[in-house]
Amino acid sequence: MTSYAVGVDLGGTNLRIAAVDESGKLLAKITLGTEVARGREFVVDELSRSIVEMRERFNGTAELRGIGVGVPGLIDSETGRLVESPNLPGWEDYDVKGDIERRVGAPVILENDANVAAVGEHWLGAGQNAESLCMYTLGTGVGGGLILDGRLWRGWNGMAGELGHCNVEPDGHPCKCGSWGCLEQYASATAVVRLAREALVGGAVSELQDTTEFSSLAVYECAMHGDPVAKQVFEHAGRALGRAIANMVNAMNVGLFVIGGGASSGWDAFAPAMFDEVRKRSYIYANTTAADGTGVGGRKRVTVITRAQLGGDGGLYGAARLPMLQG
Amino acid sequence: MTSYAVGVDLGGTNLRIAAVDESGKLLAKITLGTEVARGREFVVDELSRSIVEMRERFNGTAELRGIGVGVPGLIDSETGRLVESPNLPGWEDYDVKGDIERRVGAPVILENDANVAAVGEHWLGAGQNAESLCMYTLGTGVGGGLILDGRLWRGWNGMAGELGHCNVEPDGHPCKCGSWGCLEQYASATAVVRLAREALVGGAVSELQDTTEFSSLAVYECAMHGDPVAKQVFEHAGRALGRAIANMVNAMNVGLFVIGGGASSGWDAFAPAMFDEVRKRSYIYANTTAADGTGVGGRKRVTVITRAQLGGDGGLYGAARLPMLQG
Repeated sequence: MTSYAVGVDLGGTNLRIAAVDESGKLLAKITLGTEVARGREFVVDELSRSIVEMRERFNGTAELRGIGVGVPGLIDSETGRLVESPNLPGWEDYDVKGDIERRVGAPVILENDANVAAVGEHWLGAGQNAESLCMYTLGTGVGGGLILDGRLWRGWNGMAGELGHCNVEPDGHPCKCGSWGCLEQYASATAVVRLAREALVGGAVSELQDTTEFSSLAVYECAMHGDPVAKQVFEHAGRALGRAIANMVNAMNVGLFVIGGGASSGWDAFAPAMFDEVRKRSYIYANTTAADGTGVGGRKRVTVITRAQLGGDGGLYGAARLPMLQG
Repeated sequence: MTSYAVGVDLGGTNLRIAAVDESGKLLAKITLGTEVARGREFVVDELSRSIVEMRERFNGTAELRGIGVGVPGLIDSETGRLVESPNLPGWEDYDVKGDIERRVGAPVILENDANVAAVGEHWLGAGQNAESLCMYTLGTGVGGGLILDGRLWRGWNGMAGELGHCNVEPDGHPCKCGSWGCLEQYASATAVVRLAREALVGGAVSELQDTTEFSSLAVYECAMHGDPVAKQVFEHAGRALGRAIANMVNAMNVGLFVIGGGASSGWDAFAPAMFDEVRKRSYIYANTTAADGTGVGGRKRVTVITRAQLGGDGGLYGAARLPMLQG
């Protein structure tokens, strides 16, 4: 009998549940809206019922290897609970893992959503052959995940990978984390929209003035048309991301950086500034990797910065992968 | 027969060679000046002769386990050569390892000096019981070393741990690495002196005006007497260090930070600003570790930031430790 795992991607907007086999093949998928407003009990009940549904569907044909759940928030490895979860208000200090386990009658692995996305990209995406990688997910916020020597790096409290809170402008925009000038305030989808609005309020002339409501995608499209405000916003995002990546190259000398999340679709608009900044800020990068991506002085070990390959599914595959990596 | 290793600390000023046994006991030590001006051949010859002298001294009484050498510079793991070595001009792209090996007729492990200091503190100093630690050495520059799950983290090119080049002020003081506002430009002994000079040129009133030449130690002593300029310099250094540490807490969630190097003797003058900055910039730190160092909400896993315990000998012990960790 083949075996499979259930992966759950519990986002602030969507709740997705998938059954994935050990080769990475998607066997089944359920997509629901995350009705955060109806409370955590409601959401966990829906999620648990979908897991049970998956299990019943494959009962007798494939063996359940385990259940992995990715959640947007900091998970304290000492207590197994969420410490911070801005997109799931009221979920702090709630035993999500225990509650799901009680409802489905099976063990659950709970993990931060960006860590899970890194696991997914390492398994089936841009990092398949990498021993180590560092992933940034540019979404509503900026998440991060680190794979070191093939394993997810969780850190002392299970909270490692908060790469969105790398400081890139010490006196910059206030961040909900309590600091100022975190990467998240410049390179998230939210930040792209804010930076564009700030420029318009400042009197800059832009295509964006014609619309009252715009998304980061609209800013990206304007940037690709040559709109100066939109271009500047993405350059700002790229410089911020480049600065954060340079810090990680210098500190960790990781060889692969994977950029995912919704706002990474603006790659063409932000990547040139990002690469320029990494080169300026990291002499390890500049000394090893030429502008065309080849090795300086014939070296083989270059630093690669590239886009994620699994799109929005990285977290789903990564969550399913978690139980496969155990024991 | 007991066994021992030879550790070499090749600094820009001093060259020290020690024989250390497996329990960490110092069996013998040779201290020489590093006569950089006489050229690399001369220095390597002196160094090699001291290693041979150590080996002859213990010949027949203890078995040589291996030789470890810490050097101030970036070592490329692909070629085994130095890529950057500001304190050893002319040593770039020179096969230090091979040259020593030829002269002593035994294998040598070459490692960056700050990495070696981290190994030393992990073995016999502030990090003895830590699974992971992150070390900053505040000297002429700022070096760094990372121990992750008990092992030195070398990274993709062997260049990991360049923590002195974490960006703390994007438009700050130019750094010899090509960037601006690196930690090294605020928290090294060199930077402390520069920051004090800048304040004096700016017209600030200080005890330091009475001396034409002063060291970082003199600035520290003035700070402890309440001199406002000196206090401000160390506060600046502390904030810079705190910002860099906060980035590492957020990214890696390492549980122990060890601060060593000559300028760490200014701890009392810079630590308050450092702790304040880490608390403001890292919500992982703030959510786990109370101001008195106890765990928030009764947790056991706090983040500790503390002084190195081995002083200038960390690198020497760490270098001797390298061959003991192999095979």
